[in-house]
Amino acid sequence: MIQTEDTIIALATPSGSGAIGVIRLSGPDAIMMANAVFKGKDLTKQATHTLHYGSIADGDFILDEVVVSLFVGPKSYTRENVVEISCHGSNYIIESIIKLLLKNGARAAKPGEFTLRAFMNGQLDLSQAEAVADLIASNSKASQQVALQQLRGGFSNQLQHLREQLVQFASLIELELDFAEEDVEFANRDQLKQLIHQITKIIGGLIQSFELGNAIKNGVNTVIAGRPNAGKSTLLNALLNEERAIVSHIPGTTRDTIEEVLNIKGINFRLIDTAGIREATDAIEQIGVQRTMEKISQSALLLYVFDAEQISLADLEADIASLQAPGITMLVIANKADLLNPDQLATLPHTEKAIIISAKEKLHIDELKQKIYNAAVKEQLTGNETLVTNIRHLEALQKTEQSLIRVLDGIDGVTSDFLAMDIKQALHYLSEITGAVTTDDLLENIFSKFCIGK
Amino acid sequence: MIQTEDTIIALATPSGSGAIGVIRLSGPDAIMMANAVFKGKDLTKQATHTLHYGSIADGDFILDEVVVSLFVGPKSYTRENVVEISCHGSNYIIESIIKLLLKNGARAAKPGEFTLRAFMNGQLDLSQAEAVADLIASNSKASQQVALQQLRGGFSNQLQHLREQLVQFASLIELELDFAEEDVEFANRDQLKQLIHQITKIIGGLIQSFELGNAIKNGVNTVIAGRPNAGKSTLLNALLNEERAIVSHIPGTTRDTIEEVLNIKGINFRLIDTAGIREATDAIEQIGVQRTMEKISQSALLLYVFDAEQISLADLEADIASLQAPGITMLVIANKADLLNPDQLATLPHTEKAIIISAKEKLHIDELKQKIYNAAVKEQLTGNETLVTNIRHLEALQKTEQSLIRVLDGIDGVTSDFLAMDIKQALHYLSEITGAVTTDDLLENIFSKFCIGK
Repeated sequence: MIQTEDTIIALATPSGSGAIGVIRLSGPDAIMMANAVFKGKDLTKQATHTLHYGSIADGDFILDEVVVSLFVGPKSYTRENVVEISCHGSNYIIESIIKLLLKNGARAAKPGEFTLRAFMNGQLDLSQAEAVADLIASNSKASQQVALQQLRGGFSNQLQHLREQLVQFASLIELELDFAEEDVEFANRDQLKQLIHQITKIIGGLIQSFELGNAIKNGVNTVIAGRPNAGKSTLLNALLNEERAIVSHIPGTTRDTIEEVLNIKGINFRLIDTAGIREATDAIEQIGVQRTMEKISQSALLLYVFDAEQISLADLEADIASLQAPGITMLVIANKADLLNPDQLATLPHTEKAIIISAKEKLHIDELKQKIYNAAVKEQLTGNETLVTNIRHLEALQKTEQSLIRVLDGIDGVTSDFLAMDIKQALHYLSEITGAVTTDDLLENIFSKFCIGK
Repeated sequence: MIQTEDTIIALATPSGSGAIGVIRLSGPDAIMMANAVFKGKDLTKQATHTLHYGSIADGDFILDEVVVSLFVGPKSYTRENVVEISCHGSNYIIESIIKLLLKNGARAAKPGEFTLRAFMNGQLDLSQAEAVADLIASNSKASQQVALQQLRGGFSNQLQHLREQLVQFASLIELELDFAEEDVEFANRDQLKQLIHQITKIIGGLIQSFELGNAIKNGVNTVIAGRPNAGKSTLLNALLNEERAIVSHIPGTTRDTIEEVLNIKGINFRLIDTAGIREATDAIEQIGVQRTMEKISQSALLLYVFDAEQISLADLEADIASLQAPGITMLVIANKADLLNPDQLATLPHTEKAIIISAKEKLHIDELKQKIYNAAVKEQLTGNETLVTNIRHLEALQKTEQSLIRVLDGIDGVTSDFLAMDIKQALHYLSEITGAVTTDDLLENIFSKFCIGK
């Protein structure tokens, strides 16, 4: 059972040495408990949204000089009484203060428990609560924006709108059930079909948005592959050059792989360099090629690079054919264009997914970046669109869609009670997203992934 | 030159992912700058010590939803206008907000610059400012207490009192200078001597307190040495056993040394185990003994353990003689007492610095801990005494003492003008501690060791 009656405490800032640390208390007794260890003004008599300087003491023993922030419920993050104690950023002091308050009746908060309370008390719906974790994890402009949009209720509002339409539909059907023996039709079947079509289209759009939403939230795994000396490393450097400041080194799970993050217009592409592929002449080389193929299969985007001056058309076609994999977009990159004459250039592939560059001379690198960006972001982003980024939401939307398709299939044939059941099912799945319908297990599962203190 | 006219900004909480991050702004334009990027109430019209929910926006582009803390100068840490922005704890978001405010005219704060401003604006004196850094670095009850005592002005008050007495003394001497030709004596030389004696005694006490103050602040390096199988590791385990919860593993600079921290009544003893010493029969063993001797020479306390059942009196005396080193306290620990009969026990050394234990049976371990504690803390700590923990303060006190000794030496012989000079010199050194006398270089040196954001 989820407990919400007691007062919880946790460090809200990262641990480690810093100028200050912030300890957060939430619950009915938060202000009383803080007041019992606070030397300064009587906190129980202060207004909400005020700051108070004083010290935290265990009896006569001063632990630290602090500033206390007071949020009187319901005007707080959790809608409960919340106290934030801003102390000197020593782990020893932070622990001393937390231990003192635990001794005085507070309980150590579980991961995400403050946000769980915000949800339980109606401050946030479930998708907004999930956006809080996404926001903390955000590492690019786009992932920050999509999380903020979700936190600010953009996604919830859209779902609420769909829900209202379905509820209206369902109530008409229910009405028919009440008059079942009289065989009346309150709900015009053609209008209903049109409505369900509309809703299904919107839900289909949301489901489709997951690909981009996921790319924005988690970055796009992008493999660079090609024969030895095709210029893969030069390409990697050329791509990273302009935005080196926001490039980061992510050590791979295995020591031999280093990933580089390339940020294009706010989207993170995780570039994964691979060993050069060549026709395997022995078992060891065969393993190398297999590894590359594995990496490709885990990616969303493949940058296939070839040396335009050296490769034969047959080899090129063979490479492209062998690297094709389902669900992966491939860009074909002809490198070393600076070494070619116009006739040679004319023989190269000219398609939307092909580009001629010189990594060394940095020719057409911006165009390549645009193509990389387009491969992940098909349409122009306005920053206001609702994108599904959460696999739990995706699954609920897919189940909603299936229920609605059953409604459409049955609309002319089945009786009103079956129709009503399918619509209720669709409503149920939609409600799971915002948490209007939920279980302790689901909440446990969602909030256990939060950091402690949020 | 130290700049104090502009508005500075820094992250005040440790970097890394957390529930929240706190960004601190201080300076004349802090509130105006925050208000320019804040969507919510007009911050320039709000009272000091209030909290405001809203969002930070770059034009129409929302960066995060935040809570802003407002401290209107002089009622703030720095006595300037201070704004603290509590945002979601994503490094990306924190950087975005800081970048936005830098673009709008704030300047990135240097390490310790907030506390430097608190000092420049008279909120703290220099020794109190130094205590802030000590407090953040504190890692035991005793180190926290001594830093808090210093921050709360205990040390400063004591110095101030000494200073006032000296100033009074100096003014009488100066008066004599004005009437030099008349050869009068306003300052009774005997009373003056008595006063200087008193002050010198207090300063001598402060100088002596450094040994303990330093032990409290930095922990006490404690070497465990003894012949192989004397029971050193068993002793280490026995010592650590009771307080395992607050034991930490500190990897040494070399891989082969693991230090364990033993906390006795709030003081950290860093226990350093050494290889067994024995008479060196070859070059390699000689190196081992040398290493042990080196570790002993870097320590304040030596726990010499011997197997009371096995060792001969001659060997025992030889060991003790060879391990003696200047400035290091040695405790002589007879181990395996459980295997001895009363006659054997009677032959063992019985002094204040000797103890008979059984590490295996955990006999007399508490008494040993008390002896270890006593070796560092000669007198009972009340928690209110002033301890010098800072080497800069120690040096200034030593120079003060030297000047005062010159005053005493000259009091009956030299002329008033020489006396006045020596007293002024003593005053100068005392003033260096609290920062009444200071230089940019000194401040730079002190505050550059702070963390950024404090």
